[in-house]
Amino acid sequence: MNEIRVWAPKPRTVELQLGSQRLEMRPAEQGWWRIEHDAIRPGADYSFFLDDAGPFPDPRSQFQPHGVHGPSRVVDHDAFRWIAGRFQARPLSSAMVYELHIGTFTPGGTFTGAIDRLDHLVHLGVTHVELMPVQEFSGRWGWGYDGVDLFAPHHAYGSPDDLKRLVDAAHARGLAVLLDVVYNHLGPAGNYLDRFGPYFTTRYSTPWGPAVNLDGAGSTEVRRFLCDNAIMWLRDYRFDGLRIDAIHAIHDSSAIHFLAQLAHEIDQLEAHLGRSLVLIAESDLNDPRVVTPREAGGYGIDAQWSDDFHHALHTVLTGERAGYYADFGSLADLAKTLSHAYCYDGRYSAYRDAMHGARPVNLDGWRFLGYLQNHDQVGNRPMGDRISRSISAGRLKIGAALVMCSPFIPMLFQGEEFLASPPFLYFTQHEDPDLARAVSDGRRREFSSFKWNPDDVPDPQDPATFQRSKLDWNELARAPHKSMLIFYKRLTDLRREFPELSDGCLERVQVDFDEASRWITVTRGRIALLANLGESAQTLSAPFEATPLISSEPDFPERSRAWLLSPDSLLIVAAVS
Amino acid sequence: MNEIRVWAPKPRTVELQLGSQRLEMRPAEQGWWRIEHDAIRPGADYSFFLDDAGPFPDPRSQFQPHGVHGPSRVVDHDAFRWIAGRFQARPLSSAMVYELHIGTFTPGGTFTGAIDRLDHLVHLGVTHVELMPVQEFSGRWGWGYDGVDLFAPHHAYGSPDDLKRLVDAAHARGLAVLLDVVYNHLGPAGNYLDRFGPYFTTRYSTPWGPAVNLDGAGSTEVRRFLCDNAIMWLRDYRFDGLRIDAIHAIHDSSAIHFLAQLAHEIDQLEAHLGRSLVLIAESDLNDPRVVTPREAGGYGIDAQWSDDFHHALHTVLTGERAGYYADFGSLADLAKTLSHAYCYDGRYSAYRDAMHGARPVNLDGWRFLGYLQNHDQVGNRPMGDRISRSISAGRLKIGAALVMCSPFIPMLFQGEEFLASPPFLYFTQHEDPDLARAVSDGRRREFSSFKWNPDDVPDPQDPATFQRSKLDWNELARAPHKSMLIFYKRLTDLRREFPELSDGCLERVQVDFDEASRWITVTRGRIALLANLGESAQTLSAPFEATPLISSEPDFPERSRAWLLSPDSLLIVAAVS
Repeated sequence: MNEIRVWAPKPRTVELQLGSQRLEMRPAEQGWWRIEHDAIRPGADYSFFLDDAGPFPDPRSQFQPHGVHGPSRVVDHDAFRWIAGRFQARPLSSAMVYELHIGTFTPGGTFTGAIDRLDHLVHLGVTHVELMPVQEFSGRWGWGYDGVDLFAPHHAYGSPDDLKRLVDAAHARGLAVLLDVVYNHLGPAGNYLDRFGPYFTTRYSTPWGPAVNLDGAGSTEVRRFLCDNAIMWLRDYRFDGLRIDAIHAIHDSSAIHFLAQLAHEIDQLEAHLGRSLVLIAESDLNDPRVVTPREAGGYGIDAQWSDDFHHALHTVLTGERAGYYADFGSLADLAKTLSHAYCYDGRYSAYRDAMHGARPVNLDGWRFLGYLQNHDQVGNRPMGDRISRSISAGRLKIGAALVMCSPFIPMLFQGEEFLASPPFLYFTQHEDPDLARAVSDGRRREFSSFKWNPDDVPDPQDPATFQRSKLDWNELARAPHKSMLIFYKRLTDLRREFPELSDGCLERVQVDFDEASRWITVTRGRIALLANLGESAQTLSAPFEATPLISSEPDFPERSRAWLLSPDSLLIVAAVS
Repeated sequence: MNEIRVWAPKPRTVELQLGSQRLEMRPAEQGWWRIEHDAIRPGADYSFFLDDAGPFPDPRSQFQPHGVHGPSRVVDHDAFRWIAGRFQARPLSSAMVYELHIGTFTPGGTFTGAIDRLDHLVHLGVTHVELMPVQEFSGRWGWGYDGVDLFAPHHAYGSPDDLKRLVDAAHARGLAVLLDVVYNHLGPAGNYLDRFGPYFTTRYSTPWGPAVNLDGAGSTEVRRFLCDNAIMWLRDYRFDGLRIDAIHAIHDSSAIHFLAQLAHEIDQLEAHLGRSLVLIAESDLNDPRVVTPREAGGYGIDAQWSDDFHHALHTVLTGERAGYYADFGSLADLAKTLSHAYCYDGRYSAYRDAMHGARPVNLDGWRFLGYLQNHDQVGNRPMGDRISRSISAGRLKIGAALVMCSPFIPMLFQGEEFLASPPFLYFTQHEDPDLARAVSDGRRREFSSFKWNPDDVPDPQDPATFQRSKLDWNELARAPHKSMLIFYKRLTDLRREFPELSDGCLERVQVDFDEASRWITVTRGRIALLANLGESAQTLSAPFEATPLISSEPDFPERSRAWLLSPDSLLIVAAVS
């Protein structure tokens, strides 16, 4: 513990600033530097000088109590006293994920504040909480995808111990916790990594900044940096898995792709720790290789987000066709995603003006997360408005029911379950005035070509934009919110009660629909979901005699094979056994 | 035939210059333009004006009789009268490839001139001739990797019909012909494609220029362009396969990689034409996926060049360790490549400062081409000197024998078989003075850091550099050349006579060696190759009683299990049955 090591192959000298002392570090093997000193103790703050320039925080800083530009703090992970025993997460096949953003999930926006709402999630039937990125980023608030100290929990959310308290409290309640990690780029502010070593490359580009060097000179250590990062969150913070952001921007032409290496190392860690760990990718590739086991030539990632299902569902419910929604809109597309996961599986995409995707073979439905909303699909709208602003309560319930009766792992976005009113806007708090202006202007520009007046688009740098995005838990007591929560709760109960809903078998998903009269039915084992998206009442049938279980309307119809459904209504029935 | 079509989604107007007429073209679907006119006939020259700028040659020009900047000529492929009947190439498992460069293979440097030397190749035992790129490039001479009119045979080599005559003459002699195609970049001079459509992307970079857009907007047509190009050479010119240049610089993150699409389309063409077609990749990735069948998750390329085997062999023979040779040098490395193809199969490479490669599983030896020399390994040396300049005739024979007794497809570089004296230098004939100077200076700079005086490095733009690289066929009649040819001929006869040499089974390759005393033996079925690379005579043994077949020394030793070999000598023996 009295040692500090840093990989810094670029500078010719590395010094440690420790309190008021500046100490020369000794070169070690392969570009590493080291120093031992009695004052290197938990709680001590330090930074580096490289070739006399600095101070710079540690690329592997465990905590940045004063933000991205400040010193790093020594943390002793072994000192934390865990209360919950060894935790085993539910398998993904029977999981239900809940995505939340620490800063807006509760009024205080802290790790420990979130603990207060865990019982609500347990009651709802959630099995896995997924935290949006908590790695130290520029400013006090933000979405977190511009993290630069990937080993440090964001200081404004609390301390490393606070984050452990949150994970511990979740485990004590039977909840698994996943963490969103960003390995495709680093944020623009406070990113000093390039001064230490070849973390970045110009051979590839990403929309958000320089690509990470995963296959060029020095990449062995860069890959080590990221794998060690994943290992730290899973081992030292006891997360149960990671959600890997935008893997389509992780460029690596090595014969062993970084993600395959990561999945392999996490498998080893899983065996070592004796508890189940999962990796979930956000992927825009529609490439089945991502979630194919390594033995079968894939990367061995456990599951991926399914934007195709989201887009197909969103367009059917809202009628929107702007941007990437142009590629979707028919019930046929929705039906295809329900039974084949990818809608674009080698088809031409007009939005991309390119062929997109490949056909998944022998992949289970639980390799994909299905959702009606997520932080991106809400927050990337100019007004950050939830889908509940655009459609009737009936349609909203149809959307929720389609997610919960899908063969995928259902995922909810914070507040969705109680019809939360606040938007989820894009908010930042960059201190550098140039960067702040660039972000504000960029957001205005991004939406000025649409129907929006740029002046109406909330300014990401305005503190009110952040404040407005916080959930209002008082809503829970009010009528429409309360009844929506009851509806979601019934759906999650249903999913738990009928195992065919989470059997993950895509082949057995039976979807019928009529594009013209806009109805769709989904049958999975004994359960049939009937939904009328048309403009007039119509009679929909199940393939068997059945008893109504859940309806969007207050009055339950009778046991039958066919029911008259009014517009924007749905009925879930169970076969009479 | 009276129609011209061109894909040009970028300009708002496209005109056809046909003789002295300038004609407006009509927009068709998906960015295509078309025009019909009676004067569009075989032999007619034409070019395009885009938004009034031009004239530009056709991106799919079939012939550029006046070079890369001139007009394109209409060619009727059906008019050629083929003499040889339908040709079936030997399978790759029993192939022997001969790489040649049209411009330097014969004094005239033409397609038809090469016909004169085909009998020599047949006599040698060659099964597949591989032409270095013949696609129209800037200047009269050059290596060909800077082609810009990918559908047009280089005008200085002859006409489209001349190229067909060469392929036809080869087929008539039982020789298959492969063509080198460059799909990772286009040359710097005469490249007008970017004016027509989004052929290039800035999302990736290559060492030689902008990367080809294989996964962005418009990529469907760009992929079509390249696949159609491959199909044209195989169908209209009756090539038997393609060697795909530097696939490590073909960047594509689509779920269906461009190479997998290409391999699939060539499979379909093969079925359609009823003759065997092969794809061979130059790959620096050491990624088994490249040559793994598509059914098993690979790209389905038939075979790849094996630089690891070359480098391991070259360093053992020459003792060189500069540049990428730093990663090789031990007999253990050579032994590993002989039995595992890749030396770097997930190991750390010091030269790359990165982990490199992955382990091939269930791949046959004939998925790899093995060679002592190729155009790059000779031509990228400052003096373009062949390995015969660096080592004794005995070592040279050891190298040749190791290639011919390897489990790989042996490949020779033009003249290697007769100890050709001329170097193979880097030569260009760019007309643009700035580009010419850049190429000359670049070559000087490239080698100035080594032991070379930049003034000694031949200037690529000097016509003498090209002339000096031409083979001198008069050498064939002279003693050392003649006897080397006899030696090579005996090796190729041996390989044909003993099928175990081409069984491709890596598991059955038995290699023994002693790093200190520098001997190596390779046993494959009834054949054992014994080589003494040490400084004194030593006794080497076969694992069986055997009869000597081929030796680098004039006096043949007796039937035995062990033989005394002088330094730099080799002996190939066959088990007594």
